Amino acid sequence: MALRLYDLAGADPDRRFSPFCWRIRMALAHKGLAVETLPWRFGEKARLAASGQGLVPVLEDGATVVSDSWAIACHLEDQYPDRPSLFGGPGGRAMARFIAAWTDSVVHLGVARCVVKDIWDVIAPADQPYFRDSREKRFGMTLEQFVANRDATVLEFRASLGPLRFTLGKQPFLGGDSPNYADYTVFGAFMWARNVSAFRLLEAEDPVHAWRARLLAAFDGLAGGSLGYEV
Amino acid sequence: MALRLYDLAGADPDRRFSPFCWRIRMALAHKGLAVETLPWRFGEKARLAASGQGLVPVLEDGATVVSDSWAIACHLEDQYPDRPSLFGGPGGRAMARFIAAWTDSVVHLGVARCVVKDIWDVIAPADQPYFRDSREKRFGMTLEQFVANRDATVLEFRASLGPLRFTLGKQPFLGGDSPNYADYTVFGAFMWARNVSAFRLLEAEDPVHAWRARLLAAFDGLAGGSLGYEV
Repeated sequence: MALRLYDLAGADPDRRFSPFCWRIRMALAHKGLAVETLPWRFGEKARLAASGQGLVPVLEDGATVVSDSWAIACHLEDQYPDRPSLFGGPGGRAMARFIAAWTDSVVHLGVARCVVKDIWDVIAPADQPYFRDSREKRFGMTLEQFVANRDATVLEFRASLGPLRFTLGKQPFLGGDSPNYADYTVFGAFMWARNVSAFRLLEAEDPVHAWRARLLAAFDGLAGGSLGYEV
Repeated sequence: MALRLYDLAGADPDRRFSPFCWRIRMALAHKGLAVETLPWRFGEKARLAASGQGLVPVLEDGATVVSDSWAIACHLEDQYPDRPSLFGGPGGRAMARFIAAWTDSVVHLGVARCVVKDIWDVIAPADQPYFRDSREKRFGMTLEQFVANRDATVLEFRASLGPLRFTLGKQPFLGGDSPNYADYTVFGAFMWARNVSAFRLLEAEDPVHAWRARLLAAFDGLAGGSLGYEV
């Protein structure tokens, strides 16, 4: 059955930077499922009409259309149970929600404070007014103001990764000896940054940097080979 | 086989407030294992000699002695596999380490900034100099200074629980439909506070408050019936 994923793209259709879409790209590779990714831009809400909402990722799995990264991950786990598990059992599925919630708040805020202006720079001109207006309303300041202090806020960001760093001192991946959806969830935030910005989020000697390198190399370099920056 | 747990106690031997010991008390109840808890005070390092270190929890399981809450949880999971799982599979075991790391840093710091002076008030007089000296060295200030601003820092603490609160909006427990070791890990931090202090950490309408209430009531009120404060 053909799988197709609507995947957020920049002005260059090969620039794929949605953290939520990267969760699903990695999850599909984990399951060994081939997928056709369809570049999608913020303004193209109408193309997602079958999903009943206007955000990516949206997965078409034959006649089934699923939106929301968490729902898509659960769909893949349930529809393809004979392939490698994304969660490693029911406990992992439940706890992965917490790790996603931590990522969505702590990690995404820290990344956004460093690179959100860089996103604006690489998206299609037609998307730029929507992106600027919606984010500036959310942040209560201009994009430029939001990242103005990033040489300092990146230090807070690195400190906020303490629980991840500690865990990686005990085991190679959040999923244990091998990566699973918990890893892809956090890793998506780093792909969001990598594919729009040359700004250095992590120090080279940080165990989080080595973990990210392992995931960039995973699945024959699926993520590491994508259009972005070497950081 | 008799199980015995060395459990940190205050001046009143019934006052049990170690967050790490509470993780194990709850884990033992989850497994349906009866345990004899032995009140232990900070100064009694010699009583733990068989464990090769000086901190509780220490579990005696027949001739086996295990220290460190994480190692004890894994011991229980591996030695009693036919009883309800603490982790819900290998993915849950791996991800529970991250939740423990988040608890140990974010949650414990927030709780300590509110109640660490209250701990000093309830421990045995013989333990007070050790406790004050070691914590004041760690914090770089007096216990009184560390909690002086708690009416403000508790607001930061509540905000830091965002990922927990969001997850509890999706499912009743971190473990999913029923609690598991991930829940007990975070819950231990609240028992640490509850059993030494009347300070109100959570607002009554907070979903985290309702989750805590469910765990206080679990296992016939094991935690809720312990000597502490109604908060």
